[in-house]
Amino acid sequence: MDKPYLLFLGDVPDQLAAKTARGIADWRPEWVVGQLRLPGCNADAGVPDTTVAEAAQKGARTMVVGVAFSGGVMPSHWVGTIVSAIEAGMDIASGLHDRLGDVPEIADAAAKHDRKLYDVRHSTQRFSTGKGHKRTGKRLLTVGTDCSVGKKYTVLALEREMLARGMKARFCATGQTGVFIAERGVAIDAVISDFIAGAAEWLSPDNEPDHWDLIEGQGSLFHAAFAGVTLGLLHGAQPDALVLCHEPTRTHMRGLKHMPIPKLEDCFEPYLHHAYLTNPEAKFIGISMDTHLLSPTEAERVLKSTEDRFGLPCCDPLATGTGAIVDRLTS
Amino acid sequence: MDKPYLLFLGDVPDQLAAKTARGIADWRPEWVVGQLRLPGCNADAGVPDTTVAEAAQKGARTMVVGVAFSGGVMPSHWVGTIVSAIEAGMDIASGLHDRLGDVPEIADAAAKHDRKLYDVRHSTQRFSTGKGHKRTGKRLLTVGTDCSVGKKYTVLALEREMLARGMKARFCATGQTGVFIAERGVAIDAVISDFIAGAAEWLSPDNEPDHWDLIEGQGSLFHAAFAGVTLGLLHGAQPDALVLCHEPTRTHMRGLKHMPIPKLEDCFEPYLHHAYLTNPEAKFIGISMDTHLLSPTEAERVLKSTEDRFGLPCCDPLATGTGAIVDRLTS
Repeated sequence: MDKPYLLFLGDVPDQLAAKTARGIADWRPEWVVGQLRLPGCNADAGVPDTTVAEAAQKGARTMVVGVAFSGGVMPSHWVGTIVSAIEAGMDIASGLHDRLGDVPEIADAAAKHDRKLYDVRHSTQRFSTGKGHKRTGKRLLTVGTDCSVGKKYTVLALEREMLARGMKARFCATGQTGVFIAERGVAIDAVISDFIAGAAEWLSPDNEPDHWDLIEGQGSLFHAAFAGVTLGLLHGAQPDALVLCHEPTRTHMRGLKHMPIPKLEDCFEPYLHHAYLTNPEAKFIGISMDTHLLSPTEAERVLKSTEDRFGLPCCDPLATGTGAIVDRLTS
Repeated sequence: MDKPYLLFLGDVPDQLAAKTARGIADWRPEWVVGQLRLPGCNADAGVPDTTVAEAAQKGARTMVVGVAFSGGVMPSHWVGTIVSAIEAGMDIASGLHDRLGDVPEIADAAAKHDRKLYDVRHSTQRFSTGKGHKRTGKRLLTVGTDCSVGKKYTVLALEREMLARGMKARFCATGQTGVFIAERGVAIDAVISDFIAGAAEWLSPDNEPDHWDLIEGQGSLFHAAFAGVTLGLLHGAQPDALVLCHEPTRTHMRGLKHMPIPKLEDCFEPYLHHAYLTNPEAKFIGISMDTHLLSPTEAERVLKSTEDRFGLPCCDPLATGTGAIVDRLTS
């Protein structure tokens, strides 16, 4: 995909729904000219607001539909803006389940203006079913109390820290945002369900004994909509190391107001129990918390008390870095 | 799909791989004129062997590619036989992941002879993500120690028994064989993984308080390739009643020779633990065993000792019927 990007946020109702745009802006800011938001948008990728015309003038080559919400259906009132970006000379990239080319107005505009449409959620890769054989090399997987609790940010921060220490490490993207950032990977929630574990095995093949694949977790074993994806990924990833991710202010499961967040202490055993099926050596090596909604004092207190309570390093990947977790990999 | 059917078994290596053909022959024998097997086929649907020409003469309207193996890819040396059935005037129906129309020779022959191609594994239904809300009516789900251990036969036998008693019951198919038999349902392993639980919710909507949806289980929570499908289906089905299915001579997980079958006593708690997320009232009401590889004496001994050991009725759906399990639903 040609860079730089204009990030399109539409009129999504909250910050979490714009996590693709935010993820690209946070981890690849040099690729971004600005964001385009429609009236009513309650999200912010933290980059300058811009129009299609301004973005085109700044050289934007691709408009990224930078949203990721449950189900992933394209709202019809976004189509006009997408067509105008095509008319301004941009390719379009989307991480939604809906394919851009299935919207006639978008397909027609792309054909007329000779622009490309990218559906990064749809891999052209063909997968096998999982085999469960032990692979060489090391693997770390982030898992969560809920969806959208920092599983991707944690592995990206771990990759940065490990590479800075001269370790062999690679971020393995399993969601549309990660695929945008890494420019490789597979949106595992868009894979045919028979092949979830097989796709995870494909993503992280045999490697050198001291090489770490840092695999982005998906969903949560405790989420009534997405636990199947989480479990298939866990089996296929066969992690040596697990990091539990949590957002301490969350009161209910993402998108399911009637379902409470599980307690941290109730999460370790279920994940380990299932991890043992493909890797009997799996263990938790840390806890990662997204504390940005807490005051710095409160965040520090929560991280410290969680660390003391479970005897595991507890970090915020953005606020404190992940050094203490990486120490566990090298000790 | 027009009936009657010719069942095509190809040259599959074992009986389990022909379970679609066998399932149709066992549960809908009145729809079947015979089976067509290639040299080297190690399976038998228990119906007369026939050629394409003989089947056409007996009035076969559709040839069903009646196999279901891991991954579901169409072997290229089957294409000639499929084309000859089209040339003999039959439509073709398949439960493989590969679409019939993606094989150029098959697509060309179907177009030339104006025949229909059915890919029953591919639903045209659009699903939502799971919501986890409690639905009205009752639900039973079969779960397994492994794949291919009688989960479908158990619910079909339960449906037969319950309807004979005048109860309100309906078989809900979740695999290609079940969809052939029921002529409705969804092949849940072919659904995009984000929508596994949502598809199960769609399959079994609100119903009368005394109506039982009998939902065909898939895979196994203990299978390294397919546990994600199993878990998503469990959450979406929100079963009130669970029946554990088992094949007592199996020594390793289907297709994974390095992985042993779990012990029965280790299966109940993991299934219940996950079932509670969407239905805190879930409970096991019976055990179903496929004992056809045992002698009648040995089968009787195993069923009786398992029943005594776990305090649950233990049936073979074909050999003993499922009456004792249905008794638990009415008591």
